[in-house]
Amino acid sequence: MTERCDLLITNIHAATMDPAIRGGYGAVEDAAVAVTGGKIVWLGSRKELPDCSADEVVDGEGQWLTPGLIDCHTHLVYGGHRASEFARRLGGESYEEVARSGGGILSTVRATRAASAEQLYAAAVPRLQALMSEGVTTVEIKSGYGLELDTELKQLRTARRLAQHYPVEIVTSCLAAHALPPEYDGRADEYIDLVCERILPAAAGEQLADAVDMFCESIAFSVEQCQRVIDCAKKLGLPVKVHAEQMAHTGATAMAVKAGALSVDHIEYITDMDVAALAESGTVAVLLPGAFYTLRETRTPPVEKLRASGVPMALASDLNPGSCPLASLRLMMNMGCNFFGLTPAEALAGVTRAAARALGLSCSRGSLRVGLRADMVLWPMDTPDRLAYEVGALNPARVFFAGKTVGGSDVAAG
Amino acid sequence: MTERCDLLITNIHAATMDPAIRGGYGAVEDAAVAVTGGKIVWLGSRKELPDCSADEVVDGEGQWLTPGLIDCHTHLVYGGHRASEFARRLGGESYEEVARSGGGILSTVRATRAASAEQLYAAAVPRLQALMSEGVTTVEIKSGYGLELDTELKQLRTARRLAQHYPVEIVTSCLAAHALPPEYDGRADEYIDLVCERILPAAAGEQLADAVDMFCESIAFSVEQCQRVIDCAKKLGLPVKVHAEQMAHTGATAMAVKAGALSVDHIEYITDMDVAALAESGTVAVLLPGAFYTLRETRTPPVEKLRASGVPMALASDLNPGSCPLASLRLMMNMGCNFFGLTPAEALAGVTRAAARALGLSCSRGSLRVGLRADMVLWPMDTPDRLAYEVGALNPARVFFAGKTVGGSDVAAG
Ligand SMILES: [Zn+2]
Ligand SMILES: [Zn+2]
Repeated sequence: MTERCDLLITNIHAATMDPAIRGGYGAVEDAAVAVTGGKIVWLGSRKELPDCSADEVVDGEGQWLTPGLIDCHTHLVYGGHRASEFARRLGGESYEEVARSGGGILSTVRATRAASAEQLYAAAVPRLQALMSEGVTTVEIKSGYGLELDTELKQLRTARRLAQHYPVEIVTSCLAAHALPPEYDGRADEYIDLVCERILPAAAGEQLADAVDMFCESIAFSVEQCQRVIDCAKKLGLPVKVHAEQMAHTGATAMAVKAGALSVDHIEYITDMDVAALAESGTVAVLLPGAFYTLRETRTPPVEKLRASGVPMALASDLNPGSCPLASLRLMMNMGCNFFGLTPAEALAGVTRAAARALGLSCSRGSLRVGLRADMVLWPMDTPDRLAYEVGALNPARVFFAGKTVGGSDVAAG
Repeated sequence: MTERCDLLITNIHAATMDPAIRGGYGAVEDAAVAVTGGKIVWLGSRKELPDCSADEVVDGEGQWLTPGLIDCHTHLVYGGHRASEFARRLGGESYEEVARSGGGILSTVRATRAASAEQLYAAAVPRLQALMSEGVTTVEIKSGYGLELDTELKQLRTARRLAQHYPVEIVTSCLAAHALPPEYDGRADEYIDLVCERILPAAAGEQLADAVDMFCESIAFSVEQCQRVIDCAKKLGLPVKVHAEQMAHTGATAMAVKAGALSVDHIEYITDMDVAALAESGTVAVLLPGAFYTLRETRTPPVEKLRASGVPMALASDLNPGSCPLASLRLMMNMGCNFFGLTPAEALAGVTRAAARALGLSCSRGSLRVGLRADMVLWPMDTPDRLAYEVGALNPARVFFAGKTVGGSDVAAG
């Protein structure tokens, strides 16, 4: 390390999540971390810390330091909500009745199209703040409630605008292939033409999309249609992600792996062959227990097989107005353990190391290692097992975004 | 109303939860509320508001006002935590293996006995703050991790001390009959002697207990033993509550109803006859979906029958280190809907009107009515259905404790 650094944190235990360090948390007890230029420049046992001077020294008081949390799958920019639909279903109406009277995803599409950029932004802020208050330092945000050029771009621009006003890093995915818009009813291939010829090129041209996502399911788009979207993304130089095998097996995972996708998300219905393909590829399995919970599903993703095969498992909120109106990544860690059988260490890896990889950002974040961004959270706890075990009362003592702490109101829940 | 009041809130919609007003929320749209001396002195349509002057006028900006939320069943004062046990179980160890090596409730008993009063208080504060940050204005707190005189009183004194430092109202229950302490192994009747002859009289003598609770289950105490606790409570002039029929049918509900208990809590295994008995009595059914979730139970309480019979259903967190380390009453509203099929209006009634009744406090709180305490929450939402529908991003704009707003740090999550 250099003899001078911007920030030195001592008297901590570090859950580095570095796989090179033994144990699920890659723990370094009685550690110190030095930061310069927003990056970690030294991390190790405090006894081995070289002589150095720091502009700011933080006494961690024996607390635990983790990487900043990463929510690698959200739909948090949307108009309206579906609370009344939720009430109608609980009041006894069927999904079909609700859908027939204009409910479901298309109600969110209508509300998102109708919302001004300002309204979309204002509605997204408390959702982003809720995540930030839990120590989330990187958030992925998808479009997909426009299903037409202008609204898809409006959603993506809103995501970019959030990044300008909040210290959290925002990564965007264009999910124009989310659902068939009503004006294309019966003409899915023509809608895919629009996605490939107009929406994706426009999003790429304005640098509004860091990746391209798609919903491959019988109620959305076929493998063939998704393959066209993948081919288009490749031409535009964008990585891909796939909403895959949530309600049935479609072959989406095999397609995604072949395309070198960053991640396949949901995957309740993947097969043993899919698991083997994932294990050989660099594609991450993204588990979404909040949607599983809200939809009252019973089929869980094959966590034991994924674990045995060494497939990286990320956990994300899927925050969206229909199947997961729950703005809490910590709750997802708890649900990932309770519903899917993850261990607390796997749950933390799922919202740090594996989540970074699902966004193609392993080389800059997701663990505490020299050279990575100093996105870090200091927690008042005696064991990192508490992060998945409990919800609500254990909150960050301090959050560092690239080595800088941002004051109260920006990170408080709105 | 008097012509002068302390506080006037106008330009709101009120979810009064007053059963005298039609609709599940007892809604009064475009309403105004006047408060004097900490109590509601006028509530109605803004158009009908008499001329009056107020020391403080709040423009509600079209937001919704609800009663302060009430968490009527918590165990939030305890020592230690069980995160490592949680991790061990997810790592593949059975409940029995964990229990054999000192895990389970008795590990919390050890930690609570070992904790100083100061440590117990410090550990409870963030749990209480988490609830308060969600608009909770009344919290019930049980003892039950002492299982000996000194520690039971230490827990109850900690609960009273929280009430001195925070604006939230705290109601206590002595749950000395929670589990059999190890030093009484095989001598449950003798432990009940201790509870009735020493612990309850001491708690009553110091006015530390507002009620007496007990755990009637094969793994805890029999109906006969609980009846002795009830008889003792009656002599001491204290109302009773019962943890009943969570894992099997024991007859606890029938006993509780006969004793005029305030509530029976859990009740996954109550029978049709129990439901009928509850309907005839004033006893409230307290549903605890967080424990149902954490324990991965499958048997739900008979909500449809309770609803059809008109039994008041409260919802509470059961916040505790083993079966519900989730400090969020709003999450319980969401889980009450998703797991148990409550409607959003029933969920709100469950944490207001019915919860007040479960604490014997209907005449002072739980709805917005003239004469009741002005415990109120202003929410930035267009429909009260959102309170059960979503978690995390929808937070109180303002919380009133007996008509007074308390500033930021006291109600922020710790
Ligand atoms: Zn999604
Ligand atoms: Zn309990």
